[in-house]
Amino acid sequence: MRRSESAQIAMMLEVCAYPKPGNVDRCHDYDDTWLEHFLASAILARPAFVAAENRSAGIGACIKDAVSLTAVHKGGNTHFGAYILLFPLIMGDGIDGAMDVISRTTVDDALSFYEAFALTEVRMNETDELDVNDPESAQYIRDEGLTLADIISYSAAGDMVCREWSNGFALSRRVADFLLASPDGKQAIVRAFLSLLATEPDTFIIKKLGREAAEWTMIRAKEVCAGTYEAEDFDEECLARGINPGSIADITIAGIYLALREGWDWESLQTV
Amino acid sequence: MRRSESAQIAMMLEVCAYPKPGNVDRCHDYDDTWLEHFLASAILARPAFVAAENRSAGIGACIKDAVSLTAVHKGGNTHFGAYILLFPLIMGDGIDGAMDVISRTTVDDALSFYEAFALTEVRMNETDELDVNDPESAQYIRDEGLTLADIISYSAAGDMVCREWSNGFALSRRVADFLLASPDGKQAIVRAFLSLLATEPDTFIIKKLGREAAEWTMIRAKEVCAGTYEAEDFDEECLARGINPGSIADITIAGIYLALREGWDWESLQTV
Repeated sequence: MRRSESAQIAMMLEVCAYPKPGNVDRCHDYDDTWLEHFLASAILARPAFVAAENRSAGIGACIKDAVSLTAVHKGGNTHFGAYILLFPLIMGDGIDGAMDVISRTTVDDALSFYEAFALTEVRMNETDELDVNDPESAQYIRDEGLTLADIISYSAAGDMVCREWSNGFALSRRVADFLLASPDGKQAIVRAFLSLLATEPDTFIIKKLGREAAEWTMIRAKEVCAGTYEAEDFDEECLARGINPGSIADITIAGIYLALREGWDWESLQTV
Repeated sequence: MRRSESAQIAMMLEVCAYPKPGNVDRCHDYDDTWLEHFLASAILARPAFVAAENRSAGIGACIKDAVSLTAVHKGGNTHFGAYILLFPLIMGDGIDGAMDVISRTTVDDALSFYEAFALTEVRMNETDELDVNDPESAQYIRDEGLTLADIISYSAAGDMVCREWSNGFALSRRVADFLLASPDGKQAIVRAFLSLLATEPDTFIIKKLGREAAEWTMIRAKEVCAGTYEAEDFDEECLARGINPGSIADITIAGIYLALREGWDWESLQTV
């Protein structure tokens, strides 16, 4: 299978995995964003993934291309964080290569990324200095000679997806290792997701609802992992509170991608 | 959107539509074939659809290519019937063009189709003279100069998908018209499926379980359409009896494809 296809399959497997508390899955839509929107994105992003695989465009242009290609549906931005992780992993064919790709990003990559960002409604931290809706940001990037890696590292403190670029994809790796060590194929995706949710505050939740909500989510996820609380009940409570762990979902996609590339068999159904 | 992408989106929307009695949907897997297998096929078939769109390969080769590309998962053949309908519709850019494509099929197309067929486990009618597992069939096709259209027309009597090639895609058209006349987007897919199921004996059911099972299915589907029987109960009863209306699902995909190409908005959610 081509790397572009593994990325698409990773996006598909992640969104189908059920029950994935707080997030869209095969049994839950949000009012404005449905299972079908996530799947349409997985289908329509392909040319950008192929360009990354062939290295026929820079990483910033690839991310912008993926955002444009998938902006044709009404489900809004479905995978911006996942693109930030998948593109270096595709271009570099794994984590080591991805870190090399990241180290070589340019000012042009940063500018394309900002153009991509402006097409989405991704939430900024209030402390973020560079506002995508401010035309002066582009000038500032040029004046300061900021690369995409610089931009992403500015966001790393408050964004666990961006942090993956500086810590060698630590959490993506953890998800991949979890899956590779599990004998029960796609059924392990929910457990990998929950194990991350139990130990890492989701920065998407923090941006949307504050740190307290993210910590509540961790405590509940721990209980689900310990078997003292039902995943289905957790799911309902997340939906009622408007909690969706979007960043951990993005990292889960990157982890699935890595695992697929390293031979993980999502179709295995051995009993755990 | 490109025609190849419309075909992929059609496959995705059809399998996600719920509740689709007897078939895989977002809430039901079969033991051996899952939602994810259908979606993996929708993702992986793309190069064959692109070849059809670009007319860079013949229709027989395209069908064989789609079957090969999607045979990498363990879910078995998911879309053989759908390919028989989608490829002429993509190549011809609609029904009129498809009928022209069909009228020009060749002996080579027939031979490629037989090679594709041999890769699947598609059920033959007992009366079918050409057995795909019999090497003499290929020789017979060559000796008699049979085109793919000839082959498909032999099967039309007992296979409603093949019949679409000779009747101008009558049932695919009916599904498309149903969707285009419905204001509630993707929610209309299940009603289109049920309305076909209520009036047409599914030839996949006939091949697998006999005519009586297909007629029972029609009666039950009529009751669901009339509102006197719940779709969810019908679904459970179909699963218990091993009834899956696979041919009508294939025709539903072709109908969704046509509707998408003609401007149908699957994202509309107006109340019916």
